[in-house]
Amino acid sequence: MGKRTDTRERTLRTAATLFRTQGYHGTGLNQVLAEGGLPKGSLYFHFPGGKEQLAAEAVALGAGELCDWVSAILDAAPDPGAGLDAVIQGLAEHLTASDFNLGCPIGTVAPDGGDLVRDACVSAFGAWQDVVREYLAGQGVSDPDEVATTLLAALEGAQLLARTRRDTAPLYAVGKTMRTLLKGR
Amino acid sequence: MGKRTDTRERTLRTAATLFRTQGYHGTGLNQVLAEGGLPKGSLYFHFPGGKEQLAAEAVALGAGELCDWVSAILDAAPDPGAGLDAVIQGLAEHLTASDFNLGCPIGTVAPDGGDLVRDACVSAFGAWQDVVREYLAGQGVSDPDEVATTLLAALEGAQLLARTRRDTAPLYAVGKTMRTLLKGR
Repeated sequence: MGKRTDTRERTLRTAATLFRTQGYHGTGLNQVLAEGGLPKGSLYFHFPGGKEQLAAEAVALGAGELCDWVSAILDAAPDPGAGLDAVIQGLAEHLTASDFNLGCPIGTVAPDGGDLVRDACVSAFGAWQDVVREYLAGQGVSDPDEVATTLLAALEGAQLLARTRRDTAPLYAVGKTMRTLLKGR
Repeated sequence: MGKRTDTRERTLRTAATLFRTQGYHGTGLNQVLAEGGLPKGSLYFHFPGGKEQLAAEAVALGAGELCDWVSAILDAAPDPGAGLDAVIQGLAEHLTASDFNLGCPIGTVAPDGGDLVRDACVSAFGAWQDVVREYLAGQGVSDPDEVATTLLAALEGAQLLARTRRDTAPLYAVGKTMRTLLKGR
């Protein structure tokens, strides 16, 4: 059973990295098999729903890790501004380390796939937003849901700008502006 | 010459709509020809650089129209907050009218194409940001470049969230939050 689980996990990890880099349509199943060194046939055995199922599970995996990471940062932050700075710093380091190849595991796939992928992205964005909204509410920030939506949108857009420009400056600009927003509340 | 120009223009318009809806990799050249009712061979005659050239020109076309539209709104707005509201309203109506299919002409293609497309997206994002920065500077907003970057990022992200959720609420939430940001400056 261990080996079977390993293959499934390896397929999913390989697919997740490719989807984050190339989007849904830019990633072919043959590439997932080749880059993962996976046996043919393993894909539909573990993922009978094919590419859509693989992408939906990859989004859920990436979103879960992202939420854990954001939660840990916010738990450790002395205040919302410091938390935002740490998130921005982490996203910038991640983009730089991957030579601007690895985008957001949700945002890169969201515009691209069918209903199964879209549903996974709706859940993933929702989970991210819930973590931030609950944190902001606990910090006494007013309109926490709207502010969490805006932070999510601004960080998605900033990652898109940073990847396109191959420059982390948009992330830091957004961080600085959004920090003044949190301060004013 | 008129007919030749018409075919080029029609090819570009058809491609631009498909790229905004499906992204770069999700759009095939055969689909561009079929949906545009275009003669085979017309594509490489008018766009010898193929799909990359077509996508880069589609981004430039869409960005030019977007900048004109934003400029006109800002020129007519009594203050930055009202201008932002009008932009949000227009983006929301556009998404609703297209059943959430037509995304940003730049943002939808940016993560996807090769260097030619990426260069076109860098220019397009830059032109949009310039329009907003100059307007904000003229209105006495401090840090106009950072605020313009943040508005651009937040509106890109809001369109992505709205398309994914098939709901304009994220756009209005971002508008409301960003409006308090402009007021505080």
